[in-house]
Amino acid sequence: MNASLPTHEMEMIVTWGDCDAAGISYYAKTFDWFTNGRMRLLAKYGFPYMEAFHRNGISLVCLTADCAYKKMLRPDETITLRTSVTFFTRTRMTFEYEIYKTNGELAAKGQTTHAYATPEGKACNLKKARPELWNGLAEQWSVFQE
Amino acid sequence: MNASLPTHEMEMIVTWGDCDAAGISYYAKTFDWFTNGRMRLLAKYGFPYMEAFHRNGISLVCLTADCAYKKMLRPDETITLRTSVTFFTRTRMTFEYEIYKTNGELAAKGQTTHAYATPEGKACNLKKARPELWNGLAEQWSVFQE
Amino acid sequence: MNASLPTHEMEMIVTWGDCDAAGISYYAKTFDWFTNGRMRLLAKYGFPYMEAFHRNGISLVCLTADCAYKKMLRPDETITLRTSVTFFTRTRMTFEYEIYKTNGELAAKGQTTHAYATPEGKACNLKKARPELWNGLAEQWSVFQE
Amino acid sequence: MNASLPTHEMEMIVTWGDCDAAGISYYAKTFDWFTNGRMRLLAKYGFPYMEAFHRNGISLVCLTADCAYKKMLRPDETITLRTSVTFFTRTRMTFEYEIYKTNGELAAKGQTTHAYATPEGKACNLKKARPELWNGLAEQWSVFQE
Repeated sequence: MNASLPTHEMEMIVTWGDCDAAGISYYAKTFDWFTNGRMRLLAKYGFPYMEAFHRNGISLVCLTADCAYKKMLRPDETITLRTSVTFFTRTRMTFEYEIYKTNGELAAKGQTTHAYATPEGKACNLKKARPELWNGLAEQWSVFQE
Repeated sequence: MNASLPTHEMEMIVTWGDCDAAGISYYAKTFDWFTNGRMRLLAKYGFPYMEAFHRNGISLVCLTADCAYKKMLRPDETITLRTSVTFFTRTRMTFEYEIYKTNGELAAKGQTTHAYATPEGKACNLKKARPELWNGLAEQWSVFQE
Repeated sequence: MNASLPTHEMEMIVTWGDCDAAGISYYAKTFDWFTNGRMRLLAKYGFPYMEAFHRNGISLVCLTADCAYKKMLRPDETITLRTSVTFFTRTRMTFEYEIYKTNGELAAKGQTTHAYATPEGKACNLKKARPELWNGLAEQWSVFQE
Repeated sequence: MNASLPTHEMEMIVTWGDCDAAGISYYAKTFDWFTNGRMRLLAKYGFPYMEAFHRNGISLVCLTADCAYKKMLRPDETITLRTSVTFFTRTRMTFEYEIYKTNGELAAKGQTTHAYATPEGKACNLKKARPELWNGLAEQWSVFQE
């Protein structure tokens, strides 16, 4: 990943509830972890989702999500989730996620793309709909303005 | 989709537990629905997952998963999940999923690719590892042999 | 259970995603099944939750929940969930749930109690807050008036 | 709670995926949090579940679970989960859970009781089935021997 992109790294433990009857983490749960990484990243940069987006009438509606699974993960295993914003425009935000085992192996890598939406579920231009929020984000993440 | 591909269609109701604080179905849960479609398809063609695969020492380990979300879905909404096998070889199985609203609109479309793995988590050639299972599937899904 | 209580019975299949690394249904998921039984029961009697309660500004907030687990359940297993309303007043609704295996054995039995709450999360007297909804329910479930 | 009981306290953040369409934490997810508290408690006292129990052929099968919900919790909210072992015998282990808001208010309180079971799902006497594990636990948690 580009080191200058907005990035957040968190350690987490694969929980019992994250795993399925094969004894490994359930593939669908990985997308729930991605949400946690995304939320922590937004909070780290001063835009906690509930406050800055949700209660402000803006949803980050998911348009696409994908993940490639490289290594199986088991309950109680400690992993690192690295989240980055890789694309940021007036209508879209894209996040990239990498999950690492403690030995440094890449266990999974994924991506989600989001549109900004009003409470009625209509896609919107963030700069027009919430100029303050847009300006705040654009200032923080000035790497995308170049 | 190609009509001659192995296909299964099921009606389901979006549950309260499927939805998130935005009041719409949670994107990660869509992948759990995909699992249900995959499992029912396998059962329909005579290969219930637990019996034909899991207890037989073969896992369908997920390698990649993706989904494109087109329409928001709400609790209590009835939807149709159509699952197809789109790729089937000695080392891989790919499923495609389409979710339709009752008015016929496509709400989501996704795909998962799986490898066959032994209980130790090693990828295997299904024809060599479980010839009977392979032959049974190949006979049922002869469209892939052409 | 008292045969004259409002009751709903549904068949369901234990899904792969319902199960944990022990290969059996995860105890926490049983409460999600209970929600499904509760929702279907309300719909059966003419009060679909989203329409009659949620969009009407009333939540059924859970106050207490409990479950006793008697038999382990495995992926792909067909079970029957029987839900009843066992208590219904202007401030409370209690549901009882029984899960049966296909051989008739009781696998689990639980209960949830709910208060009616406004969108602000304040408990309310349903007869005062939504007289029409209260009257409709009271008429349907006249067994509780005796 | 009795201060001398085995206890573990952890801070956690209510996630987006923990919450339902009412915008508050989903009651069923609370039991998943309880699992996390239980697992961390066991690890803290030197008995990580996967290693000491699961791979050792012993499951902690849930017999009963209950929870009383006092306060609603929202996404991004920081809470404290306090877990204690309140009962420990050769055939049973009981855990109590308390969830606190940052202002010190009790948000939920629950309990789970577990039997020890073999991989075949048979309940067993832990002292007989795994004397080393039993002795280790009994030594750590000597408060129960008095």
